Amino acid sequence: MKRSQRIPSRATTAVAGSADLHRRLHEGTDAGRVLTADLPQRLGETVELRGWLHRRRRLAALTFVILRDRTGLAQVVVKDAALMSRLDGIGEETVISVTGRASPNPAAPAGVEIVDPSLALLSDPADTPAIELWRPSLNVSLPTLLDQAPVTWRHPRRRAIWQLAAASLRGFRETLLPKGYTEISTPKLVGSSTESGANVFEVDYFGRPAYLAQSPQFYKQIMVGVFERVFEVGPVFRAEPHDTVRHLAEYVSLDAELGFIDDHRDVLGVLREVLAGMLAAVTVDAEDAVDLLGLRLPDLPADIPVVHFTDALAMLGADPDEPDLAPEHERALGQWAMREHGSDFIAVEGYPMRKRPFYTSPQPGDPRWSNSFDLLFRGLELVTGGQRLHRYADYVTALSERGEPTGPYETYLDAFRHGMPPHGGFAIGLERWIGRLVEADNIRQTTLFPRDLHRLSP
Amino acid sequence: MKRSQRIPSRATTAVAGSADLHRRLHEGTDAGRVLTADLPQRLGETVELRGWLHRRRRLAALTFVILRDRTGLAQVVVKDAALMSRLDGIGEETVISVTGRASPNPAAPAGVEIVDPSLALLSDPADTPAIELWRPSLNVSLPTLLDQAPVTWRHPRRRAIWQLAAASLRGFRETLLPKGYTEISTPKLVGSSTESGANVFEVDYFGRPAYLAQSPQFYKQIMVGVFERVFEVGPVFRAEPHDTVRHLAEYVSLDAELGFIDDHRDVLGVLREVLAGMLAAVTVDAEDAVDLLGLRLPDLPADIPVVHFTDALAMLGADPDEPDLAPEHERALGQWAMREHGSDFIAVEGYPMRKRPFYTSPQPGDPRWSNSFDLLFRGLELVTGGQRLHRYADYVTALSERGEPTGPYETYLDAFRHGMPPHGGFAIGLERWIGRLVEADNIRQTTLFPRDLHRLSP
Repeated sequence: MKRSQRIPSRATTAVAGSADLHRRLHEGTDAGRVLTADLPQRLGETVELRGWLHRRRRLAALTFVILRDRTGLAQVVVKDAALMSRLDGIGEETVISVTGRASPNPAAPAGVEIVDPSLALLSDPADTPAIELWRPSLNVSLPTLLDQAPVTWRHPRRRAIWQLAAASLRGFRETLLPKGYTEISTPKLVGSSTESGANVFEVDYFGRPAYLAQSPQFYKQIMVGVFERVFEVGPVFRAEPHDTVRHLAEYVSLDAELGFIDDHRDVLGVLREVLAGMLAAVTVDAEDAVDLLGLRLPDLPADIPVVHFTDALAMLGADPDEPDLAPEHERALGQWAMREHGSDFIAVEGYPMRKRPFYTSPQPGDPRWSNSFDLLFRGLELVTGGQRLHRYADYVTALSERGEPTGPYETYLDAFRHGMPPHGGFAIGLERWIGRLVEADNIRQTTLFPRDLHRLSP
Repeated sequence: MKRSQRIPSRATTAVAGSADLHRRLHEGTDAGRVLTADLPQRLGETVELRGWLHRRRRLAALTFVILRDRTGLAQVVVKDAALMSRLDGIGEETVISVTGRASPNPAAPAGVEIVDPSLALLSDPADTPAIELWRPSLNVSLPTLLDQAPVTWRHPRRRAIWQLAAASLRGFRETLLPKGYTEISTPKLVGSSTESGANVFEVDYFGRPAYLAQSPQFYKQIMVGVFERVFEVGPVFRAEPHDTVRHLAEYVSLDAELGFIDDHRDVLGVLREVLAGMLAAVTVDAEDAVDLLGLRLPDLPADIPVVHFTDALAMLGADPDEPDLAPEHERALGQWAMREHGSDFIAVEGYPMRKRPFYTSPQPGDPRWSNSFDLLFRGLELVTGGQRLHRYADYVTALSERGEPTGPYETYLDAFRHGMPPHGGFAIGLERWIGRLVEADNIRQTTLFPRDLHRLSP
């Protein structure tokens, strides 16, 4: 392409390449290319497709080529002998441009195929991946799936999983923004561990210790003092020493916090709207992904069933002194919610204060219990939320009762000394959300490049 | 409020509190409250405001109260002697509810004030901050501003700065989403440093070393192989040992990467659209912030001026062998772009290959120069972008020429071995963007809780 002209020191001449840039800005960078999803509107036309050589299938008199682009798959029929033999030398995943006529064929994807094609390579011929991406499902072990993530994410079923995640992120934000929430970005490098000393990663911060934030909890509360309603989407870090199917060392937390609430039930109300927004976005943005994966999207009633922790224990026939719900309890509650209320979600409120962090607001009239909740999605904890303390004196008492000094929390407590409204919030783990949505065996299947006790790459 | 009923083991009874929850879901959690911004529509009505006691001003026969909520300020006129003396004992920043009649007064904010008010406290009386938030500007030193961030961010001028940031984040995403970009979330904990061994934070990762990602560069390229067009908004980390006004140890990077480009000019075209989208979002979401700060929003022409690196040096009268532009060169180019093209932006393309990272695509026909660019905003580097190598063999050569082994890059290179289209991308530093927008002296003023060589809290 034409490079910029030399501009004299007292330059008054035109700007280099601006007409060319103008054209690109207004026509888009894909000018001339047709996306596979748009083929049904181009029947009879000669079109150029660009994408990956997803599959070659050579028969006696013709070769079927499947081309994959960001919108889907298209079938190309090659009958020219020279092109057929040229294709024999080009591995799957080579990036190609195919120009040909869009022709109706009820047996082809979307009822269209490309005939009389010509072919150009947009990359060197690729090494055919050892894992056959064109097969309907990826029958590989989890370590292989993760080790070869740069290639395995190209499989349509893998792509579909992340499309659900991307749609959910949009749904989360676009539910909250019109309700007056302000997006925030808070630091992931912190001077002291956020919520507890355990499970925190230590960083060499210019020769002194820093820690990776386990949540944006304190910061989002501080920012309620500024904007009333805030949200953040970002990574959080847990040095989780257990190798389980539901824990990651780094995950994406969808956090919201809001002021001027009555109690945790207001928080649950917002959470319900957020989940509805995420599901709506999945339906709009990732409809094909839902179809491909054969998902049943969850039933989210207008009223999420809510049971108190003590009632849940009684209902389950458990010891009333149990401090927490066991996994089998959560599963049973999930089944009950579906059976009795047609809901894939159930909230358990009132968890014992001694099992909740110090900033949790107690239940009025009975401080053994908390104004907090867990939301179970298909019998597994998805969200923790609740009302927080908002009075400075209550923080001092709560820390003192736990034998903790206020010193490390001084800046945080400053927000409460200077006026904070009753407030609360919640955090949704993106990977758990997707894990339940697709009913994954292992949460590592739901994030792009998982991190755990053993895995730090790719 | 009413707690849940006990649910028998074979529970078929109603869900606890569902009618109450239903009401809240459908009426919102702010039921009954009026926001200060909506007061002009409520003239003559009795309304309840909730917010912070921004200022008390006691005169002989009355006290003016300014209440601050997330939408702005409202004036309340107190003539009742008992209430006036009660207000004497309540510090600024106490969270209050004020109920009174909305009455026209051309001298009050938005032409409305609240008269005949009653008052309720929603928090304990607050300690009046040492920093007077009601003054038009915060005349405090930078260390004080940052040390007391939980309070100083409540100042309207501070809030306004972050409102620009939040709007910009929305504008970034909402420009890219309709163009077929997929949002990604890539790991911040990595096994080897992303782009260079220098300036990287080391983490104790279950007893072995890990590093904080300096950029999502490799991951976003890998994901172009999956989704063609991707973006990510997230934290990046630089162990920057210099204490300057324009560097942070942690900042927010707005990354985009796209496939099927001709060259870096296509990337610049997308960048131009993104910046236009960010400015549009600022205009819509943060109009009041722009007014309050008295900002001149930048001029972004349809064609951003582009000069080649060699032409820039010549035009500046600099040594043609200079490997980089000095800060004064950048400032001069910024002035030239404004003077000659009415543009606050100018792109410099073709930077010497030896100053660019190994994945940079060279300029066709002259590999001394690169198909990359810096975008200067008001004479300061805001964005780096360009075309990347996309052939496996080119990566092997590039690494070998720099004396680097391919081993540490093996998974990354896998993506190129298996077919990658010509692609490129860019990264915008959110804090630099806001810094230039508000013409801040120090980038630390533009992020909520900055991190640098010395600062790790709040």
